[in-house]
Amino acid sequence: MPASGSVPGRVLAAPEHHLTSSPNAGRRKFLHGVAASAAVTGGVAFAVARNAAAAADAANSLPPNVPDWSKTLGAPILASPYGVPSRYVANVKRRESPGLTRTPYSSVAFTPLQNLFGIITPSGLHFERHHAGVPDIDPGLHRLMIHGLVRNPRIYTVDDLMRFPSVSRIHFIECGANTGMEWGNVAVPTVQYSHGMLSCSEWTGVPLATLLDEAGIDAKKARYVLAEGADGAALSRTIPLAMALDDVLVCYGQNGEMLRPEQGFPLRLLVPGVQGVSSVKWLRRLEVGDQPWNTREESLHYIDMMPGGVHRQYSWIQEAKSVITSPSGAQVLVDQGYYQITGLAWSGRGKVARVDVSSDGGRNWRTARLEEPVLDKALTRFRIDWTWNGEPALLQSRVIDDTGFVQPTLGQLRHVRGARSIYHNNAIQTWRVDPTGAVSNVQVE
Amino acid sequence: MPASGSVPGRVLAAPEHHLTSSPNAGRRKFLHGVAASAAVTGGVAFAVARNAAAAADAANSLPPNVPDWSKTLGAPILASPYGVPSRYVANVKRRESPGLTRTPYSSVAFTPLQNLFGIITPSGLHFERHHAGVPDIDPGLHRLMIHGLVRNPRIYTVDDLMRFPSVSRIHFIECGANTGMEWGNVAVPTVQYSHGMLSCSEWTGVPLATLLDEAGIDAKKARYVLAEGADGAALSRTIPLAMALDDVLVCYGQNGEMLRPEQGFPLRLLVPGVQGVSSVKWLRRLEVGDQPWNTREESLHYIDMMPGGVHRQYSWIQEAKSVITSPSGAQVLVDQGYYQITGLAWSGRGKVARVDVSSDGGRNWRTARLEEPVLDKALTRFRIDWTWNGEPALLQSRVIDDTGFVQPTLGQLRHVRGARSIYHNNAIQTWRVDPTGAVSNVQVE
Repeated sequence: MPASGSVPGRVLAAPEHHLTSSPNAGRRKFLHGVAASAAVTGGVAFAVARNAAAAADAANSLPPNVPDWSKTLGAPILASPYGVPSRYVANVKRRESPGLTRTPYSSVAFTPLQNLFGIITPSGLHFERHHAGVPDIDPGLHRLMIHGLVRNPRIYTVDDLMRFPSVSRIHFIECGANTGMEWGNVAVPTVQYSHGMLSCSEWTGVPLATLLDEAGIDAKKARYVLAEGADGAALSRTIPLAMALDDVLVCYGQNGEMLRPEQGFPLRLLVPGVQGVSSVKWLRRLEVGDQPWNTREESLHYIDMMPGGVHRQYSWIQEAKSVITSPSGAQVLVDQGYYQITGLAWSGRGKVARVDVSSDGGRNWRTARLEEPVLDKALTRFRIDWTWNGEPALLQSRVIDDTGFVQPTLGQLRHVRGARSIYHNNAIQTWRVDPTGAVSNVQVE
Repeated sequence: MPASGSVPGRVLAAPEHHLTSSPNAGRRKFLHGVAASAAVTGGVAFAVARNAAAAADAANSLPPNVPDWSKTLGAPILASPYGVPSRYVANVKRRESPGLTRTPYSSVAFTPLQNLFGIITPSGLHFERHHAGVPDIDPGLHRLMIHGLVRNPRIYTVDDLMRFPSVSRIHFIECGANTGMEWGNVAVPTVQYSHGMLSCSEWTGVPLATLLDEAGIDAKKARYVLAEGADGAALSRTIPLAMALDDVLVCYGQNGEMLRPEQGFPLRLLVPGVQGVSSVKWLRRLEVGDQPWNTREESLHYIDMMPGGVHRQYSWIQEAKSVITSPSGAQVLVDQGYYQITGLAWSGRGKVARVDVSSDGGRNWRTARLEEPVLDKALTRFRIDWTWNGEPALLQSRVIDDTGFVQPTLGQLRHVRGARSIYHNNAIQTWRVDPTGAVSNVQVE
């Protein structure tokens, strides 16, 4: 399933293990061994793989007292007027899951959650999902039309919209199909592939309620809004009017700058808490109507196959869900001792209230620390201390949101939903640690 | 002072003014004219300049009903495995101030605050400041030494540090010299140059208190910590121990991913609320001592010249400060009517409690809306509605932090500090709007 070379972990454990280091480094209470974390976090581990020869040399000698970069001038100012990551982390990138889709023009690129810290997803690593490729839109020629059951239909330029009163909000976007492979018995190897259709950004734009107020909706008849993209797929989705008037935004900003092309440049809808397909990218049209549109992406796809053959057509909300990102699938614990278990929790209905973590497959639970700020319909980072004693372990996280909703086990979810679905799998994820330290994705009902 | 071609504004107002558009676009209560915002926000305006011919055509015709990008397949998945901004916003970038420094190896690149939304600075636009260029450090060979008045001196690899308990915090970094030109009578034209040594990120790393606890500091003698970088300048700064044990971090993460090279890859110190030079990048050494070190960057530079010739040597805290980023210098209001005034406020001592905005040079003030979340020692975005009536205006913002500190006027600050300083100018900034709509930087005492 994963692209070759994409899985951090065991293959890196050996050079990583040899990397450290100085005589003083090994005697600390936190680390009974050496240099374990890179195999787990996956961050710098890639660098080691790219510098295996240097690492091998370092294994038998102290590092140079004064390395070359301390004795020379570095790169001049503005070597990168728009900065890019270090060449040593080039392996931290979005990845396609070969075979998952039939064409690169309607496909998915997953966010490397195992490599990320905090709650903000760098825009360059935000997951990609499109149905006809990424259009290259000239913002000066792009228009947004608002029409239908309104008194004052409107056509706006991007500049028009940027003059409106604006707001900024940190929200996650999760594809409705995220974790879809896990409905069956397919356990994809890494959290990038199991949960990587998930990202979180600071979005800036105009409340849709403001634009609908300008248009003057027909209060007696209006019930729904259709959003349509300017891409070749003209992707379109129905949104209930109550939701449209609540916290939906017409966005032009992402993480402080203009939207990235893959995220809808120059305009996208942002429907907080709702499956990603509703946050229509390259937004060109909003139509107010009196009933759902039953568009292609609302009837052929993005429907939940329930037990007994029933199709559930409009599943708006991404229910509460969490996942441990470190340690996670295909990583390796190279030694016993201390680890910080960390991961992400979120709810399409509000805030994360609590996250519990188990290391024995759900028999015992401890409450994790939630990193501030804990925001509405945003990713929340959780952390908890753990000491691995070398025995097999089953790592799980379970979120409870501020509505009291408790993330279900896979068994509980299958009991209600069956096992034939693709969408809206928010079950508890299990990572197995075997005695060698290898971490793998296993299904625990 | 600014690079040629770097200033958005008047030159763009004319084509911008002609860009719009459809018959429906002009009749809204928010916009009495057309397409004004790009000249103000500076975001898409660049695109228009790059497409002046297209814009001229668009002025006399409706946009195409179905543009090419809606009739074709776009770019395939992973066209950019690590994504980049749209080519239409290529002009939004860090900029050097020609002549400000004598060598590109000890220079500054300013953040384009006039183009940014929200509080997160994209890592690619985080301001740059270095004293011997940006070193290209192999993270596998990099080491951090902790020594001095400690029982257990340590040398850590990056991987060692990534295994420690970690935290994530959103904090600003502001260079102590930010707004330094304004002490005299130099009013630089744009907010990028007047305030752009300011950025805000979500930082991830290990609390320095944890590492000092591991090292076992000599509680009777220890008073200060020296931090030293691995760059060719070996930049080093003294930090009071109480501060080091409070909220200082040894960081490897920035906005969800590994630090960028310009920001200290693979390790930097982060001293929240303190002038940026103390957040030592490319961190290689921490020494615990009993008195300040009086290093080169603490005696020859980063000192405040006070009235009477006294030098104030250690100015830790960046006091409360704010600035309006839109409308701001070199932008143009192309029409009367509604504008959202927006900007940033911050305090090195805690949270922003209130921001007031004046449009008449400080005679009358109205309280702005603060965007949530309002975080400790982080940028806070403020917004307030304003209707420009075509008369001259003097736009100012004034922050009050949660210690009750009120941002001073330039006159108040000069009264205490004189006019010969370079550092720690947190005076109220004034932008003048003239009857043509042109916005310029003026000094109001």
